[in-house]
Amino acid sequence: MIKQRLLLITFLLISINLSAQKKRARDYGIEIGILKTGPYNSITDVKGVKVGHTSIIKGDNIRTGVTAILPHSGNIFQLKVPAAIYLGNGFGKLAGYSQVKELGNIETPIILTNTLSVPTASNALITYTLQQKGNESIHSVNSIVGETNDGWLNDIRGRHVKEVHVLDAIENAKSGNIEEGNVGAGTGTNCFEYKGGIGTSSRVIPENLGGFTVGVLVQTNFGGILQINGVPIAKELDNYPRNYTYDVDGSCMIVVMTDAPLNSRNLERLAKRAMMGLAKTGGIASNGSGDYVIAVSTFEDNFIPYPNKSLFIKTKELDNGAITPLFLAVIEATEEAIINSLFAAKTMSGRNNHKVEALPINDVIKIMKKYKRITSDKK
Amino acid sequence: MIKQRLLLITFLLISINLSAQKKRARDYGIEIGILKTGPYNSITDVKGVKVGHTSIIKGDNIRTGVTAILPHSGNIFQLKVPAAIYLGNGFGKLAGYSQVKELGNIETPIILTNTLSVPTASNALITYTLQQKGNESIHSVNSIVGETNDGWLNDIRGRHVKEVHVLDAIENAKSGNIEEGNVGAGTGTNCFEYKGGIGTSSRVIPENLGGFTVGVLVQTNFGGILQINGVPIAKELDNYPRNYTYDVDGSCMIVVMTDAPLNSRNLERLAKRAMMGLAKTGGIASNGSGDYVIAVSTFEDNFIPYPNKSLFIKTKELDNGAITPLFLAVIEATEEAIINSLFAAKTMSGRNNHKVEALPINDVIKIMKKYKRITSDKK
Amino acid sequence: MIKQRLLLITFLLISINLSAQKKRARDYGIEIGILKTGPYNSITDVKGVKVGHTSIIKGDNIRTGVTAILPHSGNIFQLKVPAAIYLGNGFGKLAGYSQVKELGNIETPIILTNTLSVPTASNALITYTLQQKGNESIHSVNSIVGETNDGWLNDIRGRHVKEVHVLDAIENAKSGNIEEGNVGAGTGTNCFEYKGGIGTSSRVIPENLGGFTVGVLVQTNFGGILQINGVPIAKELDNYPRNYTYDVDGSCMIVVMTDAPLNSRNLERLAKRAMMGLAKTGGIASNGSGDYVIAVSTFEDNFIPYPNKSLFIKTKELDNGAITPLFLAVIEATEEAIINSLFAAKTMSGRNNHKVEALPINDVIKIMKKYKRITSDKK
Amino acid sequence: MIKQRLLLITFLLISINLSAQKKRARDYGIEIGILKTGPYNSITDVKGVKVGHTSIIKGDNIRTGVTAILPHSGNIFQLKVPAAIYLGNGFGKLAGYSQVKELGNIETPIILTNTLSVPTASNALITYTLQQKGNESIHSVNSIVGETNDGWLNDIRGRHVKEVHVLDAIENAKSGNIEEGNVGAGTGTNCFEYKGGIGTSSRVIPENLGGFTVGVLVQTNFGGILQINGVPIAKELDNYPRNYTYDVDGSCMIVVMTDAPLNSRNLERLAKRAMMGLAKTGGIASNGSGDYVIAVSTFEDNFIPYPNKSLFIKTKELDNGAITPLFLAVIEATEEAIINSLFAAKTMSGRNNHKVEALPINDVIKIMKKYKRITSDKK
Repeated sequence: MIKQRLLLITFLLISINLSAQKKRARDYGIEIGILKTGPYNSITDVKGVKVGHTSIIKGDNIRTGVTAILPHSGNIFQLKVPAAIYLGNGFGKLAGYSQVKELGNIETPIILTNTLSVPTASNALITYTLQQKGNESIHSVNSIVGETNDGWLNDIRGRHVKEVHVLDAIENAKSGNIEEGNVGAGTGTNCFEYKGGIGTSSRVIPENLGGFTVGVLVQTNFGGILQINGVPIAKELDNYPRNYTYDVDGSCMIVVMTDAPLNSRNLERLAKRAMMGLAKTGGIASNGSGDYVIAVSTFEDNFIPYPNKSLFIKTKELDNGAITPLFLAVIEATEEAIINSLFAAKTMSGRNNHKVEALPINDVIKIMKKYKRITSDKK
Repeated sequence: MIKQRLLLITFLLISINLSAQKKRARDYGIEIGILKTGPYNSITDVKGVKVGHTSIIKGDNIRTGVTAILPHSGNIFQLKVPAAIYLGNGFGKLAGYSQVKELGNIETPIILTNTLSVPTASNALITYTLQQKGNESIHSVNSIVGETNDGWLNDIRGRHVKEVHVLDAIENAKSGNIEEGNVGAGTGTNCFEYKGGIGTSSRVIPENLGGFTVGVLVQTNFGGILQINGVPIAKELDNYPRNYTYDVDGSCMIVVMTDAPLNSRNLERLAKRAMMGLAKTGGIASNGSGDYVIAVSTFEDNFIPYPNKSLFIKTKELDNGAITPLFLAVIEATEEAIINSLFAAKTMSGRNNHKVEALPINDVIKIMKKYKRITSDKK
Repeated sequence: MIKQRLLLITFLLISINLSAQKKRARDYGIEIGILKTGPYNSITDVKGVKVGHTSIIKGDNIRTGVTAILPHSGNIFQLKVPAAIYLGNGFGKLAGYSQVKELGNIETPIILTNTLSVPTASNALITYTLQQKGNESIHSVNSIVGETNDGWLNDIRGRHVKEVHVLDAIENAKSGNIEEGNVGAGTGTNCFEYKGGIGTSSRVIPENLGGFTVGVLVQTNFGGILQINGVPIAKELDNYPRNYTYDVDGSCMIVVMTDAPLNSRNLERLAKRAMMGLAKTGGIASNGSGDYVIAVSTFEDNFIPYPNKSLFIKTKELDNGAITPLFLAVIEATEEAIINSLFAAKTMSGRNNHKVEALPINDVIKIMKKYKRITSDKK
Repeated sequence: MIKQRLLLITFLLISINLSAQKKRARDYGIEIGILKTGPYNSITDVKGVKVGHTSIIKGDNIRTGVTAILPHSGNIFQLKVPAAIYLGNGFGKLAGYSQVKELGNIETPIILTNTLSVPTASNALITYTLQQKGNESIHSVNSIVGETNDGWLNDIRGRHVKEVHVLDAIENAKSGNIEEGNVGAGTGTNCFEYKGGIGTSSRVIPENLGGFTVGVLVQTNFGGILQINGVPIAKELDNYPRNYTYDVDGSCMIVVMTDAPLNSRNLERLAKRAMMGLAKTGGIASNGSGDYVIAVSTFEDNFIPYPNKSLFIKTKELDNGAITPLFLAVIEATEEAIINSLFAAKTMSGRNNHKVEALPINDVIKIMKKYKRITSDKK
């Protein structure tokens, strides 16, 4: 009954969101980087990847949610996926780091939520895994949960995320177009003193270099001095932290998926470059910012069967020398995903009557034109 | 009501345990290393440190629990404590790693429990911290929770640890003599194919080298080829894994406390040496073993006030060049703490009629005598 | 005699360089970031820091050199300096990493040179240290030497750097204005397909946040897709690698000095942010790029005496919570130091008639104006 | 001419050494661990591995040398070898760490020598690599050089190791039986207050677990409280450091080779366990001890061709779950290699009339018998 009501609310929220779908940065003629995007300009351009959101908006004070990212649609525990986590700035509560570092793979979906709901999301991933068919004798699950702190708009101390929200986000995960902005784990977040949220983008590298796709999804909740495609937006809007300290705290979770056959060592290198994309938006990885990058390779032949009847696994890996185009791809896609989160997010009021304005897109477009970074009038 | 009942059960279990308190290794004349122990030969020899256990034994299948270790009795969130975590082998679910790595301190008690109960224990630490006086506006808590997998004796999939068990363990924490063996987080664990559990030990280094105390507490649940003070017990008892693989899996959580004024860099170095003590018992840090060492300095002047009204903290630190005796101390104390866990643990039956025998102490003593490592008949 | 000749050559080169001193980016009105620079806009704005160059240009094929950076003018072995090294991308031959990681300090000047001359420079630092007064019984020296590969313009296989060049660079180190461009370790390097070299910049944070200075010196030899203050220079000049792979290889050495009292943990965090400044110039830390950041705190009271008569050191440290402005400072100063290296470098011919053009500054200024990033006509 | 003389001296030294070959620990009935050794009980039991020594003993004060370990006999730069380096305690000057960490392979032989001769050995590896056939256009070489400090017996400040000594060690490298004790890089080292040196050992895991061989070579120069197969030798001989501090300083270089197909992540895990073997001899990784483990997989199909005509490499890797027996193997082989170094080393006098006694083997054997660890009278 409760679950039904939650599903209903979720459905309504999705509907509302869809009805007011805002244009993305690229729709305005903002073209970041030199590589092409995938068809959806989304993390879901990486084959097999699915994303699901549960947004939790109740009363005046609850503005939070959950986002689930699935590397494949099978039993992830039984078909583990090469992965790495890079600690951009470790002031955060991400669950699952050490096992990924040690073993080089993940065995659950990736969940993003708010800071104080990480344990609940971990519990949900355990529930999810234990009850999957074939996992009846599993005694150990390494939940992967990232977070940022939405405590400005959300009654975070109330810990309103419940296991069911997490399970719903997994269940509802889909490929193709996914929502951005005030949705899922991005429901209540802020970024560069504007409303942040979920953003995504992708890049495809040329065929002769492998033709791989890199997709990025971000949960933006950090500060700094906003630039868009190199244009000094924060300065122009005269809106940036004057004491450079606590105001810029916050965090950014970055999830990277690629179909390139990377081992965990090279996935960690790829993850590291995502922070360079964040840097290009004006982020500074402030002391209080929990900035984490989770990178995953969805190249199926490298999935690790569990249990493994053989002593060995056979892998096909990208040579170190062929990885550079992927570095460029992840930098570009991260930069654009962050900007997309800002373009998609809408003004929101929440806890204690706090209100966070959306990025003033009309003003931004004017500034972009002033600086000659938008030349044509698209759409 | 439920809580009262739990307290009652806990109380009864403690009583039972106390009534049958077994002798410790040292009582038999087994003297590991060359340094002196503290008065209790316990982690609680480090001034201010307290330990609390909740043991959960119900019906045929539930054999688990919680152990809490407190570095001081104040508000830990507001008086953070220098700390480091070393990943001996990261195949585990420890919560809290990345923030400790980044910031060099802990802000909650340390909780040990079973693998699938880490999120519940994290939630309990959040509850504990949020409700403490003065923490009314705290929006972020970095829970420190370690675990080993007691799924052989315990219905671990049932996730029987509840938040109240964790809060009880914190509340009941005390200094002085603490229980070892089948207690708290060690209730259902195994070690070297015998019953494992909680063990503790300490060392005091000579006054002219600083006179510091190093205390260690372990939750033993790992395998290998048991040696006691260098004596090949496993070989003599003909009891060790013949395939060297899954049988030796399991884990060991090691908590190190010291009153020496170490910064987080040197605490990580100290933590690293604890694995050398584990090695001397015959442990091999097998693939599936989640071996973590959490090291904490309780030197009060170095506690970090939060919020800090100053831009600075003043610290007194041990010089790199003076740390070596502490390395020896932690190696010896870890080795002895592991052996103590084996001496204290008693035969236990549990889930699916699994039964794990206690270390056959009489036989062990005979072997130790045969190998001339016990010469006198103490007590 | 040989040394005299070398000094003469060095002198002549310095004269030539000085006579043609080019304007720096800021002189054209390119103002990167929001923080103020120090008086020299140089790493030498950090009190006590000195920089010396030896440029080696001989015949058609030799284009290399050495740059020395000294954190203080005393005996560094006997007064060690808190430091950290961050591996931005470890495809390089930097000497000295592990000891800095373990002990948190440096005990020699920092030397930059070419890839194949690292051992010679290390030997020179050993020579330098062994022969210093008071070091007569020293048996161990941890040389800190970074490098990039100048093999396109320089006969790097000839290993033309000799110990004397390194000793000269140390001896000639000075405070105040220092040379940039084709000098010292930057003599033969390339950057973004133009002539690179040495660059420097600094930032001072507001007095109420501590008033600290952060200085950066770079040896630029890397690729990517050049942006200057956010303006797409590479795209406009139509000059960037089309295969994104080997062409963008190369490396960047970054040395960061600050008078803020940071411990080695926080110095590593500071170092990490320098890579975010590199990102803002369009660098991508390609596979073959050896990108290292060495960060040093020159706060004198925290220098570590050797031998230390006490078991302890007393330190004053910046609180974690006060470090964010320094992060911004290092990002801005790194970005500007890289751009300064490009503005200062001049067209050079070298090995096998390879020729690398200087950044076409007039064209760049035009582009900057087109994109409204230079508004006034500053000399 | 000079080279001829050096070769002559080397030859004579080898002859002298061979003529007085001492018995190894196992020859006395000391059997460490439960796994079988390879045919030579040597690192050369790993197929393709070769070891060469140059010992430099001149006059009263020069007692040093070089040891080379080759993973295969081909052009290592063009056929790179998966590898990892673990920093047991990073107070040392090892060259080559960061590139191995980043790329997961080595491209030169491994050289061991004394602390102040690392740069010379690096230069020699560059020379060696540049002049190899097919390497005519190579501009970058990542030398792998480890060291310990032989400054007690050796005039280390004189830096008597020359490039030719290194090239000789490589040239003379051979498979089969190799020398131990006062030879090569172990010529002048001390261990547990006795004469240390080079030691080696190997283990073969059962066929059903893969049948792999793990070989270890050590250069022992560290302290602690000596145990042999668990027996408290140092206590019995009343010979251990009473202040636990500087006396126990020194270092241990450990080289691990295996024919198991391990990737660099799992090689680092294997390397980490070597320190557990060191722990079992009574080593404590004291502050001043530079303890490094270099682990290499010689499984030929995983060698990495350079240049690689493909974007990919195909690898066969051991599954995480099958690695545990190798962990046991490396622990046992490291422990035995260290003990072998002590058994092989002979009393030596050197610099300033310093004299270091060999381990008193007769006394040791008596103690081993007293403690029932040698029961039969072998040979």
